[in-house]
Amino acid sequence: MKAVYLDETGLSVRDDLESPTLQSDEVLVEVLKAGICETDLQLVKGYMGFQGILGHEFVGIAKTGPYTGKRVVGEINCHCRQCVYCKSGLGNHCPDRTVLGILNHDGAFAELIAVPQVNLHTIPDSLSDDHATFVEPVAAAYRLQEQLALSGDETIVVLGDGRLGNLCAQVLKLAGCEQLLVVGKHPEKLAVLRELGVQTVTLKQVEKKNQADIVVDCTGSPTGLPLALELVKPCGTVIMKTTVAGEHQLSMAPLVIDEVTLIGSRCGPFEPAIAALAEEKVIVEPLIGGRYPLEEAPLAMVKAASPGTFKILLEP
Amino acid sequence: MKAVYLDETGLSVRDDLESPTLQSDEVLVEVLKAGICETDLQLVKGYMGFQGILGHEFVGIAKTGPYTGKRVVGEINCHCRQCVYCKSGLGNHCPDRTVLGILNHDGAFAELIAVPQVNLHTIPDSLSDDHATFVEPVAAAYRLQEQLALSGDETIVVLGDGRLGNLCAQVLKLAGCEQLLVVGKHPEKLAVLRELGVQTVTLKQVEKKNQADIVVDCTGSPTGLPLALELVKPCGTVIMKTTVAGEHQLSMAPLVIDEVTLIGSRCGPFEPAIAALAEEKVIVEPLIGGRYPLEEAPLAMVKAASPGTFKILLEP
Repeated sequence: MKAVYLDETGLSVRDDLESPTLQSDEVLVEVLKAGICETDLQLVKGYMGFQGILGHEFVGIAKTGPYTGKRVVGEINCHCRQCVYCKSGLGNHCPDRTVLGILNHDGAFAELIAVPQVNLHTIPDSLSDDHATFVEPVAAAYRLQEQLALSGDETIVVLGDGRLGNLCAQVLKLAGCEQLLVVGKHPEKLAVLRELGVQTVTLKQVEKKNQADIVVDCTGSPTGLPLALELVKPCGTVIMKTTVAGEHQLSMAPLVIDEVTLIGSRCGPFEPAIAALAEEKVIVEPLIGGRYPLEEAPLAMVKAASPGTFKILLEP
Repeated sequence: MKAVYLDETGLSVRDDLESPTLQSDEVLVEVLKAGICETDLQLVKGYMGFQGILGHEFVGIAKTGPYTGKRVVGEINCHCRQCVYCKSGLGNHCPDRTVLGILNHDGAFAELIAVPQVNLHTIPDSLSDDHATFVEPVAAAYRLQEQLALSGDETIVVLGDGRLGNLCAQVLKLAGCEQLLVVGKHPEKLAVLRELGVQTVTLKQVEKKNQADIVVDCTGSPTGLPLALELVKPCGTVIMKTTVAGEHQLSMAPLVIDEVTLIGSRCGPFEPAIAALAEEKVIVEPLIGGRYPLEEAPLAMVKAASPGTFKILLEP
């Protein structure tokens, strides 16, 4: 089959790959669309040392199992379901997990993908294929609601006007957070947020005062965390929503002096994400920056990495 | 008067300094003893850019105000008592604060120090001068109890067998945390902890597995945080108890992937610290590494910075 493959020689589109071999708990899914995520760009730069088929944001049609013939999206963490983490509801932290397209499991930039049946969620007819590729990142944004006890009264700054920053802002606004500001570098991306009713400011204009109760770093850049520590109040909270290949170099003294709480945040719940997208409470159409056939994945990845570009979709 | 002065030329013992000028809310305290803290060593390296008289761990005799003639210890943060932080009980984060011997306020390595009256606590006769110099760092250790909802069932690793690591371990043990391990580099310091009933392991022997619910970094070294992230469980908590002059260089990806919570921790409550020391529930006698007259402060600072040394006291 055809797929986008990453190995030590770099990224390539191959058409000589075997169809996935199913584990006993897995079903086969025919990929309809897949989205390119910042994490995919970081993986190409060497993050996680991943080798295999990339891609973890996808919608497809189940070809085997109880959902056969239905459109599905899939959670990306494949748990052992036996360990203390899995048994305590923290399966996303199972030490023996694989992760679709990220860790020891082939991903969705392919004609076919093997996914554990328990990871699949069927989606309503009202949710288009294009929009369904956003379920995974919208779920990641909903993780904020699980980690923060939001009252709605907080002053919140989201750093980053890209795909994930936009979705986090929308989900926080849905949660009733009205004192919300997105800081970004791209006027056209900030304009999309303003049309969604979110206040924005450019990076150059932002006042570097310790005034935010919560700062959510969605920059995907090592410059995000130092700025977050400048913006957050003493005893406030910084959420790190994006991973970065390579190292941070920064002074952690402000975190200690201001007794800041810094929380890492990764994957989130699919059901509220599916509902919010299906009911168009989270708006993603303006976030689609282009559609490319799978053959043109290398070009699509370059496009996804270029400033000003929103979500790029791949179509096997 | 005589004092230990830090400026751009470095550290010096001067005897030409004016006695402190008292602000309207301040009282004069004659310093009996003062302790050298890791922060003092960092200040000499340039941390905070402080210039003035060093020292913030002290016991003295009030010479003015309602406690005249009594032995006192002093909280180090001097608040404005007007701002939103001060009014909400977060005075230690007052943006207009000064900090004794650390920020815009002369410190206690001197014959006399000016301290806001509200910062003073009288101490019982049962608490010796030597032991009273430990009130400030023991209070910093008690800050852990304010920040963590400890059940006693947590597995906790304290990184660092120095002064603060020892005190944090003792306070955590007092709080009922029995699954407690201190990781250190100095056999003789680890031996002191074992005599206090705390389990220890050397840095070389520590298993770098994600198994601790809580890791408390008291290393005062940029190597502490990366190790803490290797030791803490997914969804666990790392407390940064020490500040470091200069920058950290590290990958923050483990924090995001494991959704770790990292909390900065600074000053703590004096009353439980005074009580614990007076009742000898926290044992500090073995932590005294030497006593020097104020004139020999530069030598004392070198001694305090050398591996294997515990708390060095200065006697004006």
